[in-house]
Amino acid sequence: MVREEIRVKGSRIVVGEGVAAELGAMLPEGVRAIVLTDENCAAAMGAEMGGRERIVIAGGEENKTLATVEKIYRGLIELGADRGTWLVGWGGGIVTDVAGFVAATYMRGMAGCGYVASSLLAQVDASVGGKCGANVEGYKNMAGVFSQPDFVLCDTALLATLPEREFRAGVAEMIKAGVIGDVELFEMLEAHGEEELRAEGELLVQAVVAAVRLKARIVEADEREAGERRKLNLGHTVGHAVEKLSRRWNHGEAVAIGMAEVCRESARRGMLEVGARDRIIGALERYGLPTEHDLTPEAITEAVRRDKKAESGCLRWVVPVAVGEVIVTSWD
Amino acid sequence: MVREEIRVKGSRIVVGEGVAAELGAMLPEGVRAIVLTDENCAAAMGAEMGGRERIVIAGGEENKTLATVEKIYRGLIELGADRGTWLVGWGGGIVTDVAGFVAATYMRGMAGCGYVASSLLAQVDASVGGKCGANVEGYKNMAGVFSQPDFVLCDTALLATLPEREFRAGVAEMIKAGVIGDVELFEMLEAHGEEELRAEGELLVQAVVAAVRLKARIVEADEREAGERRKLNLGHTVGHAVEKLSRRWNHGEAVAIGMAEVCRESARRGMLEVGARDRIIGALERYGLPTEHDLTPEAITEAVRRDKKAESGCLRWVVPVAVGEVIVTSWD
Repeated sequence: MVREEIRVKGSRIVVGEGVAAELGAMLPEGVRAIVLTDENCAAAMGAEMGGRERIVIAGGEENKTLATVEKIYRGLIELGADRGTWLVGWGGGIVTDVAGFVAATYMRGMAGCGYVASSLLAQVDASVGGKCGANVEGYKNMAGVFSQPDFVLCDTALLATLPEREFRAGVAEMIKAGVIGDVELFEMLEAHGEEELRAEGELLVQAVVAAVRLKARIVEADEREAGERRKLNLGHTVGHAVEKLSRRWNHGEAVAIGMAEVCRESARRGMLEVGARDRIIGALERYGLPTEHDLTPEAITEAVRRDKKAESGCLRWVVPVAVGEVIVTSWD
Repeated sequence: MVREEIRVKGSRIVVGEGVAAELGAMLPEGVRAIVLTDENCAAAMGAEMGGRERIVIAGGEENKTLATVEKIYRGLIELGADRGTWLVGWGGGIVTDVAGFVAATYMRGMAGCGYVASSLLAQVDASVGGKCGANVEGYKNMAGVFSQPDFVLCDTALLATLPEREFRAGVAEMIKAGVIGDVELFEMLEAHGEEELRAEGELLVQAVVAAVRLKARIVEADEREAGERRKLNLGHTVGHAVEKLSRRWNHGEAVAIGMAEVCRESARRGMLEVGARDRIIGALERYGLPTEHDLTPEAITEAVRRDKKAESGCLRWVVPVAVGEVIVTSWD
């Protein structure tokens, strides 16, 4: 069985089939650990969670709020959790983002925090980089901190029951990783389809590992998004706007749309070969991901302006110039 | 005019009469700075704040909540504040605690944060140490982070209009600093009364400087409260419980009660001379501070147990063994 461990900024990220079973071994002996999860995961993976104490929140982006964060604090107070307690976020990216924020802020910081990433998106994206937090009035991640979990278990076996749409959303982020800086990963994804990826355990583990490694490499060089890390925002500028303005698409789908848009614009400006553009858009479509939206340019522009990526009046775009290479530009 | 600057953990703490006027000079050139303040300060010190953009919250411990934090995030979003913006908390400890938390978490951290501490309590306590956050369901500071402000302006001229009770609350923390480790400060406070302290500008500045220095020395050695920093919790174990259970006392008053209680217990156990106990309680009483409560021991015990200082089942008490010396013990 393939099992790989990647270290980034003090986090141990373990990828493999069945690695969720290592949870007990990842925790320091004798510590109290409370699992934070959502209703879906509690129902589908309750057995895997074992007999641990649990706080269960409602799932979905609409619940990634400060009200949910406060509910979790209350739950921890009720359980008598203290600064020595560990928090384990078990779920998709919403659960892990909120868990990381709570662990970093409950009593000004709990002793430790781990994630069991149960969605493909969480495994390849939320698991690495230490960004955590909650939305404010629908503006994504306006409240948060940078805080690295002590460990992340990316158990690909947990993906077996993942709905098709959510699986694809994770693939969008893997394609993104390929476009940013891993041609081999891109070609692996381009060559296979969803069915193969889901059926062949080793292939999936390899793809997750490659995507995690790419993100880890970038985050290691630039934790706080001063330069290199911006590259990870490929597709996110328009993606966030689309996600904010329409309830039709999930995060991965919105990023797919954002990537396709920026590829088209890059090709239009002569920065990306038409062939490369078509390969990238083709790969997204191969996995059934959307590549176009039906919103007005004005609505997108206004939403982008308010988004946190718009910094001190200067908006930076991440622009593919080849498969496996992007640049960051202000595109005035 | 006396003006002193103390550096601790990257913070510049400036103490003196009229130093609030240095705000502009403390900010990097050209940055956008938004003032966060409460209704009282906005009314009383609006002129000193100048024409800066403002977010005004309702004051009082009952508003030190996540709901207030969320309102501030919304205010920042509405103003179009971004990661490059600075936040200046202008007010007492509640405003500065909340400002520090917001600055550390809005968009995962704003460019900078400063305080203009307008109460004596904020100047000698909240200004130093980097603890910030909000209450959850009446449990004090259950949500927060350690985050040092870039600067703190402790302008003693702003204390002229401070209500008597709030002034005394600050004195309680200064007496605490003296008891923990500054005999000279203790004797200065013991020798003078409230009127002299308020009338003699230099005396007040000296007392504030001494209290800040004591806290800075401890925080410098132990930011995260692993050992030495616990000493600053003198009077806080019972104090927090009293504050939580009764609306009668403010923070400083509650700490005064907690200090008196722990002095009595220490003397009872033969760890503190009766003469020293009486000096400490006498100093508190000289400033009109309460030294007794009317709650049941059971209620106090239950509230203490839930308080965050109770860590992994082992509650640590800070116990005076002389004027100017305390020890940390579990007092089983």
